[in-house]
Amino acid sequence: MPIALLTDFGTADGYVGALKGVLARLAPKVPVFDIAHDLPPFDIIQANLTLYRAYRYFPHGTIFVVVVDPGVGGGRKPLLVETKNYFFIGPDNGIFTMALAEEKILRFIELQNKKYFLPDVSFTFHGRDIFAPVAAHLAQGVSPMDFGPTLKDCLRIPEVEPKISSDYLEGRIIGVDRFGNIVTNFKKSFLKKFFPKFKFSVSVGAQLIAPLQAHYSQGKPGVAIILFGSADLLEIAVNQGSAASQLGIKIGDPVKIKLHRLGRTHGSAPTVAILEKLD
Amino acid sequence: MPIALLTDFGTADGYVGALKGVLARLAPKVPVFDIAHDLPPFDIIQANLTLYRAYRYFPHGTIFVVVVDPGVGGGRKPLLVETKNYFFIGPDNGIFTMALAEEKILRFIELQNKKYFLPDVSFTFHGRDIFAPVAAHLAQGVSPMDFGPTLKDCLRIPEVEPKISSDYLEGRIIGVDRFGNIVTNFKKSFLKKFFPKFKFSVSVGAQLIAPLQAHYSQGKPGVAIILFGSADLLEIAVNQGSAASQLGIKIGDPVKIKLHRLGRTHGSAPTVAILEKLD
Amino acid sequence: MPIALLTDFGTADGYVGALKGVLARLAPKVPVFDIAHDLPPFDIIQANLTLYRAYRYFPHGTIFVVVVDPGVGGGRKPLLVETKNYFFIGPDNGIFTMALAEEKILRFIELQNKKYFLPDVSFTFHGRDIFAPVAAHLAQGVSPMDFGPTLKDCLRIPEVEPKISSDYLEGRIIGVDRFGNIVTNFKKSFLKKFFPKFKFSVSVGAQLIAPLQAHYSQGKPGVAIILFGSADLLEIAVNQGSAASQLGIKIGDPVKIKLHRLGRTHGSAPTVAILEKLD
Repeated sequence: MPIALLTDFGTADGYVGALKGVLARLAPKVPVFDIAHDLPPFDIIQANLTLYRAYRYFPHGTIFVVVVDPGVGGGRKPLLVETKNYFFIGPDNGIFTMALAEEKILRFIELQNKKYFLPDVSFTFHGRDIFAPVAAHLAQGVSPMDFGPTLKDCLRIPEVEPKISSDYLEGRIIGVDRFGNIVTNFKKSFLKKFFPKFKFSVSVGAQLIAPLQAHYSQGKPGVAIILFGSADLLEIAVNQGSAASQLGIKIGDPVKIKLHRLGRTHGSAPTVAILEKLD
Repeated sequence: MPIALLTDFGTADGYVGALKGVLARLAPKVPVFDIAHDLPPFDIIQANLTLYRAYRYFPHGTIFVVVVDPGVGGGRKPLLVETKNYFFIGPDNGIFTMALAEEKILRFIELQNKKYFLPDVSFTFHGRDIFAPVAAHLAQGVSPMDFGPTLKDCLRIPEVEPKISSDYLEGRIIGVDRFGNIVTNFKKSFLKKFFPKFKFSVSVGAQLIAPLQAHYSQGKPGVAIILFGSADLLEIAVNQGSAASQLGIKIGDPVKIKLHRLGRTHGSAPTVAILEKLD
Repeated sequence: MPIALLTDFGTADGYVGALKGVLARLAPKVPVFDIAHDLPPFDIIQANLTLYRAYRYFPHGTIFVVVVDPGVGGGRKPLLVETKNYFFIGPDNGIFTMALAEEKILRFIELQNKKYFLPDVSFTFHGRDIFAPVAAHLAQGVSPMDFGPTLKDCLRIPEVEPKISSDYLEGRIIGVDRFGNIVTNFKKSFLKKFFPKFKFSVSVGAQLIAPLQAHYSQGKPGVAIILFGSADLLEIAVNQGSAASQLGIKIGDPVKIKLHRLGRTHGSAPTVAILEKLD
């Protein structure tokens, strides 16, 4: 049962080091993995996406400690979610929305039992004082139910799921990765329902982008393409370039897929999506 | 006995990789933890602060290898400090000042015994050639005394401790963290002596800052507050914003706490501190 | 047999996390080390240099997974190289050129056996779907020959080796490290053949740089020096400053060492190198 860490603490200030110290002290034999620590500060949507990209590759039983916590010390609840395959620990502020949509949830627990916290809980660093020690005790065999009372649900954020309206599928840009690839919140499985044959084109502003490709190097250098990325989310990419800087798209921008048919063919003409930035 | 690493090597050039290779070769079963590697190059004060934030959460017996070493190859001594609870290894240039102020020191040792170094010690990378192999041998059970002769003391830097003068407590800004929180070198335990009731206000230039708060989210977004951060150092913060960019404060700036009483009350009127940037 | 990772994935997006998840699942007891993940995107020369700096310090048997893979999904082969001391896994695009020049190669294998890949291999993330699982299976004892057919050679890139012409040794800048030190592709062992006594001077444009030094702190602050860095490559450095920004040199710039003798001495006057940027 390894512990995997995902935070917005960066890699200069020693906050991650403090977490690891707590884990090394309380669960010395448990392997600890870093998912990422350079998440944009306080960015709950990026935390969702990064966790979503990584978590399912870890062995069943892995304990994920995710700390992106702008409301630390305030009213938000400290949370443990137990699913069929995994444990998720962190603030109840929506960071688990995308992952939990894929998982069979067993229970939500509010972390209340101070016995499993550090002796002096600060108001500013629950990652170190609550989440890491709870993860360590869980890894050491403490039962999930011992950490506090169950909750009916946890907070979910709507931004990570596209909406379906009569004429459009409405999504948004939820990430730009290090290579400049632009990630939407359109999952392959979601779009499959609407476009069984995956015939897509994308227009950003007035620019029409080539149809769906399979991999980045299919694009000519400098030319934007669309494809499903490694997490099976629809991406806009530029081979060996940054789609984000080339197209001027940024996180949070809305996108829509217009539902219409091209041409006047007989039989089962494939539906074609026009993916557009909303005005 | 884990080994914990703190350097200014960054995470692109492979210097950290070389350290880890040495440790994996010489102490294959010893767990290795990263505290941080993105310290500002050559910044001994930041190294102090980052180590201070993290070290005490590690289990007793942990060996800290700290390499921020602008004088590598020159005259500064390679150092091992053994305290009641921990071991600190690195160049003798002041990087351990804050941590050692909290620890009961048993001995200082100058690393001289070449038997425990890599066979060819370079002039430019003692982290790899001296400090990592010494840490590995120490973790494998070599006695501290075997690494070289004892020293009477090690170098301490004055910048990390505030000074007490007749009218003022004089401190300085020793860190700005990833979230823009400004960290002073005023410890809670130090200020407690002067202000037993913790009633503070802070003025930066002409701007008066609200009284001491308990956590970041108590501040209105955009409004500066003061609080004790997770390492119990006095901080200036802006809820969900960067105090450093908002207030134009930078590392090294001096701050002073004026000692005076507000109002003319009877009895035990709480002392109020006015924290100001020195001109 | 630890696994060591070197990628250009950065430390924000969760791609490294996915790799680690695969390794934790398939080889749960194998120690995993990070060499670096902040390599410049797609930069095969930097990948060479960073690997070269770190790999030889790892214990024999270490499996290096190096993923800098601009051609993912295209025609480049997935590769395993077995040497006398190590295993190297990654795309066959030249990333191993510098390391392999130092190693006794036993065999090249094209990774073809899908049995050792993840069940669904994406077109965009072979690090997760091919290289990490192959590394895990190799660490668990699968024979190198089981992963696919042998190849006669792998791709080598010429940029990392200097050329010898009649009047010049022609090299280039292959790296600028975090401290601003400029790294050339002139190895100490290579230059030893031409300049047995290591008497060097360097001129960059019209600026003559002081002779070869042993370590950074021998330079006066702000003054450029040359020295052999910790990987025994010729470097240009500025003590406590950035040689790269001070001298305006960037990665890829060519440099040449002019072969001539200074003065008119009898006997074995040491050859003196003038290292220049090519026009």
